[in-house]
Amino acid sequence: MVSVMKGKFITLEGSEGVGKTTNMEFIKSCLEQLGIESVVTREPGGTSLGEKIRALLLDRDSEFLDDYAELCLIFAARAQHLARVIKPALERGVWVLCDRFTDATYAYQGGGRGVADENIEMLENMLQGDLRPDLTIVLDIDPEIGLARVKARGAFDRFEQEQLHFFQRVRNAYLARAAADTQRYRVIDVARSLAEIQVDLRHELDQFVRRVR
Amino acid sequence: MVSVMKGKFITLEGSEGVGKTTNMEFIKSCLEQLGIESVVTREPGGTSLGEKIRALLLDRDSEFLDDYAELCLIFAARAQHLARVIKPALERGVWVLCDRFTDATYAYQGGGRGVADENIEMLENMLQGDLRPDLTIVLDIDPEIGLARVKARGAFDRFEQEQLHFFQRVRNAYLARAAADTQRYRVIDVARSLAEIQVDLRHELDQFVRRVR
Repeated sequence: MVSVMKGKFITLEGSEGVGKTTNMEFIKSCLEQLGIESVVTREPGGTSLGEKIRALLLDRDSEFLDDYAELCLIFAARAQHLARVIKPALERGVWVLCDRFTDATYAYQGGGRGVADENIEMLENMLQGDLRPDLTIVLDIDPEIGLARVKARGAFDRFEQEQLHFFQRVRNAYLARAAADTQRYRVIDVARSLAEIQVDLRHELDQFVRRVR
Repeated sequence: MVSVMKGKFITLEGSEGVGKTTNMEFIKSCLEQLGIESVVTREPGGTSLGEKIRALLLDRDSEFLDDYAELCLIFAARAQHLARVIKPALERGVWVLCDRFTDATYAYQGGGRGVADENIEMLENMLQGDLRPDLTIVLDIDPEIGLARVKARGAFDRFEQEQLHFFQRVRNAYLARAAADTQRYRVIDVARSLAEIQVDLRHELDQFVRRVR
């Protein structure tokens, strides 16, 4: 990573049913009001190749998927996403708002599936060099409530059909990572009204923008 | 890798136009004559997921593919292939004949694209533990001759449309690996008649079978 990143890199994380889509739109509009140009993207996905990989990962009818095949597919999509979308935007000075990034790999493949953190870290260092999000917002909720929300939406994908204890491990991994780096992470309790959540989100964004500008 | 592998693992390597398909059939028939049951498989591919990944890798019309995305896609296919095909066969005592394996990653992504060997080695250790081929046969030819053979076959895939110096680096990487481990590797000169090649192949297989039986 020799290139200087002029934009800021914000990631939004959280398990099923935390409301990432709605809150991502809100974050983008907050930045707009502050005069900051941003692009919204997502993982796995964000590129033509990445969306094809996403389809392989989410297909609930696909053959049994080996944990390391899953891990490598996720990082394949991430490598393409970094090269084609994230780094070019940051280098141009555009902020990147990403719906899930490497923290999700630590949470789902690490916490959820039990892949060793050092394997994830190795791939993270190989692909990202020293590029890390500048701010990571973890939307947090009891998985029982989150899954009930997803259930109301209809069909489950391959991840959503996992059992409750899987999502408890995912949540715990997110919270442990957030607790270990209070500079980069902000945890927002989303078991509240949207109005309350958005007051907190706006406050965190205002603080972040003041800090980095 | 706690499990004991009862079958032997033979890989066939080489650049474009070395005749892997024809020679693989010959190797399988030699083993059959010796009373050895084997399965023939290939990389990238070998599973339903692997073949989908193969299509992404070979598609010459696909968007620019980042080198690390390519590397991770190859290892994703390999993880699935190991879990679903290679290890189950070896554990049952069936020999596995694989058309390209991790040596091809060192040759194409390492030698060809310039990905550092230590990155490939990290992924190899993560996915394979201490599983390595018992015998690797490198079919060797001057890339100019090999490419002329491929050209006679028709349309090029994404790899085959690379330039000559790419395939010279691929060949050099194969030969360097073979020279560094003369126990595991056998290099067969395929710029000769099929009859001459097959005499050598049969000799190497006879020797190998005598050694491991």
